Amino acid sequence: MAQRQMSIGMNILGHGGHAAAWRVGEAPPTAAIDVEYYKDIARISERGTLDAIFLADGPALGGDVERIPAGRLEPTVLLTAVAQATQHIGVIATASTTYNDPFNLARRFASLDQISGGRAAWNAVTNAGDAAAQNFGLAGAPLHVDRYGRADEFVDVVFKLWDSWEDDALIGDRSGGRYADGSKVHEINHVGAHFSVRGPLNVPRSPQGRPVLVQAGSSEGGKALGSRWADAIFTTQTTLPDGQDFYREMKDRARAWGRNPDGLKIMPGLSTVIGSTEAEANRRCDELDAYQGEEGLAAQVAMRIGIPVSELDLDAELPWDRLGDPSIYEKGSVGFLEAQLNLARRERLTIRQLGRRIRSGHRLVVGTPEQIADTLEEWFLAGAADGFNIMPDMFPSGCEIFVDHVVPELRRRGVFRTEYTGSTLRHHLGLPHPLSQYAAEAAREPALSY
Amino acid sequence: MAQRQMSIGMNILGHGGHAAAWRVGEAPPTAAIDVEYYKDIARISERGTLDAIFLADGPALGGDVERIPAGRLEPTVLLTAVAQATQHIGVIATASTTYNDPFNLARRFASLDQISGGRAAWNAVTNAGDAAAQNFGLAGAPLHVDRYGRADEFVDVVFKLWDSWEDDALIGDRSGGRYADGSKVHEINHVGAHFSVRGPLNVPRSPQGRPVLVQAGSSEGGKALGSRWADAIFTTQTTLPDGQDFYREMKDRARAWGRNPDGLKIMPGLSTVIGSTEAEANRRCDELDAYQGEEGLAAQVAMRIGIPVSELDLDAELPWDRLGDPSIYEKGSVGFLEAQLNLARRERLTIRQLGRRIRSGHRLVVGTPEQIADTLEEWFLAGAADGFNIMPDMFPSGCEIFVDHVVPELRRRGVFRTEYTGSTLRHHLGLPHPLSQYAAEAAREPALSY
Repeated sequence: MAQRQMSIGMNILGHGGHAAAWRVGEAPPTAAIDVEYYKDIARISERGTLDAIFLADGPALGGDVERIPAGRLEPTVLLTAVAQATQHIGVIATASTTYNDPFNLARRFASLDQISGGRAAWNAVTNAGDAAAQNFGLAGAPLHVDRYGRADEFVDVVFKLWDSWEDDALIGDRSGGRYADGSKVHEINHVGAHFSVRGPLNVPRSPQGRPVLVQAGSSEGGKALGSRWADAIFTTQTTLPDGQDFYREMKDRARAWGRNPDGLKIMPGLSTVIGSTEAEANRRCDELDAYQGEEGLAAQVAMRIGIPVSELDLDAELPWDRLGDPSIYEKGSVGFLEAQLNLARRERLTIRQLGRRIRSGHRLVVGTPEQIADTLEEWFLAGAADGFNIMPDMFPSGCEIFVDHVVPELRRRGVFRTEYTGSTLRHHLGLPHPLSQYAAEAAREPALSY
Repeated sequence: MAQRQMSIGMNILGHGGHAAAWRVGEAPPTAAIDVEYYKDIARISERGTLDAIFLADGPALGGDVERIPAGRLEPTVLLTAVAQATQHIGVIATASTTYNDPFNLARRFASLDQISGGRAAWNAVTNAGDAAAQNFGLAGAPLHVDRYGRADEFVDVVFKLWDSWEDDALIGDRSGGRYADGSKVHEINHVGAHFSVRGPLNVPRSPQGRPVLVQAGSSEGGKALGSRWADAIFTTQTTLPDGQDFYREMKDRARAWGRNPDGLKIMPGLSTVIGSTEAEANRRCDELDAYQGEEGLAAQVAMRIGIPVSELDLDAELPWDRLGDPSIYEKGSVGFLEAQLNLARRERLTIRQLGRRIRSGHRLVVGTPEQIADTLEEWFLAGAADGFNIMPDMFPSGCEIFVDHVVPELRRRGVFRTEYTGSTLRHHLGLPHPLSQYAAEAAREPALSY
């Protein structure tokens, strides 16, 4: 039996995972709206036989537009362009279940799956935060529980639409004049608390059957959603024991939904700053930090915990008494917040120390290619990860170094592919082609062939 | 002063304007979901220095999936891919104001405009018909008047979002650490009957300032919408006097909104079947018709007038007594219906004759390249058109023949460009770069520089 291998995604967050990356000048200041920038990183990632590139997103202008690059291209159209410049690598676009309609979203991702030849994935998020809500007629974000209630039904509807054309529905018989077998094109007639959708989808079934579903929230609602529907979960644990706990819990939850847990891939994030030596890596990190100053790093912590930086003592531990109120979990990402609080509590970090340890929010490793490979292999073999979502400090160099120095090391250790063996993202991730739930009904079989 | 020149768009409707085009076998049966098919036609169109390619659309599976290719790729993602395969030609995507949110739509088109280097256009439609409504939680389509009320506010919001970053808002000063001039990035704070949207858009201002706005309905609501907001109007008149009346009316309406009427381009549709001789063109047409039979053509008329074919006498004139009820205008496109009724009334056509004259719904000319050029030139010089939206009988040959034989004839006559002289669709259409309405406010000038 072949050795199990890890999956790797490249998370292209603006100029890089470090907030000051744009100041360095590796990429033009306008990179966030430059399709060539993304195509370039995708080609480098494909050279490294990575599984996918990943784009985070939210439907609002975030951050301080004066000081930090803000405003980005919409991921489904951007990744359509990127797919035209690549042949194998998957493309994962984030889109909101709170601020979209399931019919339009299902169609756009099915189209991207057709255009990319089976490389599309949807990262389903619910979008905390009032700024997004205020672009869609609401005074503020719906409560967490309501967002996840809608998300669960949203994904259900999208799956039904993706399944509404069976794999063999399209016949295309010109001489006989028969385009499709109408008995294999299904109205879904969904009626639920949030949506009434008749269907069928107006795109025939796509190469992957269904585009890959990714889920990226670690709250209770996020875990329920991800374990029920997702093919892969992007997550945020910062310590190995937390990673192992999360991995075990999600596999158990998948089992409880009647799924084969191998069909649910757990992919923690990893922020990287890589140098030929530890000293070089640290210098690279210091150079980036210098643009922000320690106050800038502390401000990132303050933003995350929802307490103004002016009310914090940077050389003290976190104000634990103020962080017991459950309402702090309504303001943003539960997963990121919990991961940071757990790390700070476990290691008794000051705010200043936590700022240096976290930066983008994901677990951060500053070190040599071997050290990066060590920690990836450790988490992978210790039952904390099926793969990783890599967030380099800056692009393109952080991606190039990863591909040219970390990937070969992982290949030497036999835990990462040396070439693509298939053409779809499902294949890269080791996921089976799903049967349409309507075909499954007819065959009296479970809908998922896991 | 240079001679005024016409604009030409290529309308890629499935396998062609003739419903039987897919039966012939020039393109694979799966062309509607094949990005290479669209890229190929776009490259041919670009070889002919056409202004744009155009994709109609609606968010529902239309027609008889057993007999006619149904299900298509979503236009904004498809045209993003097409833009990667071309350098100059504009890309016009249809999207609904009834079944989208303005924030998401504004962002997707702004992204397409960035990715294509200023070649994006949005064809705003309201979508008659219940099938679309039933994919979005409604029992049936909203009334015409309500759809257009929403459409007017929808476009207003989209324009505000496209204007929310002024042209010079993005600074990108790395060394000074200043990304944008926040005073030139505007919340729009729109509050209206249908939408409350705070903004700003999360994409900086795009190369065209605003993507081009196209409008394609000829009802009263459509004419009000188009004359107020659109850069170009796709329309359906089938006789020259009707075309002249419509042209004059729309220019007058634009003036009444305080606009320069030159900023509103009128582009009627023209269905073409072209042969080296008239006889060859007729043979081509007969070959296509043979797949459908005369009953198939009559069925298209029946569908358009909303009366079952079984209740019609194909050798009689239209049942005028049954067509007086204004409710027939609620069921589908007012423009197409009126154009067909006017033609049939004027020429006293039977249903069978009307079926042969109309087919796709647009004015149809079967003839030689010279005859096609004659009618284009006639309408253009007689004040019935600033340009045309061409719908060939089938692809790719109908497009190739147009580009290789009609375009050279138009060039010889001096009414069509011999090369692209600019890089944006606005430039091709002869439209000025619009000023942001927020910049205009500051300068105490009208928002549009027409």
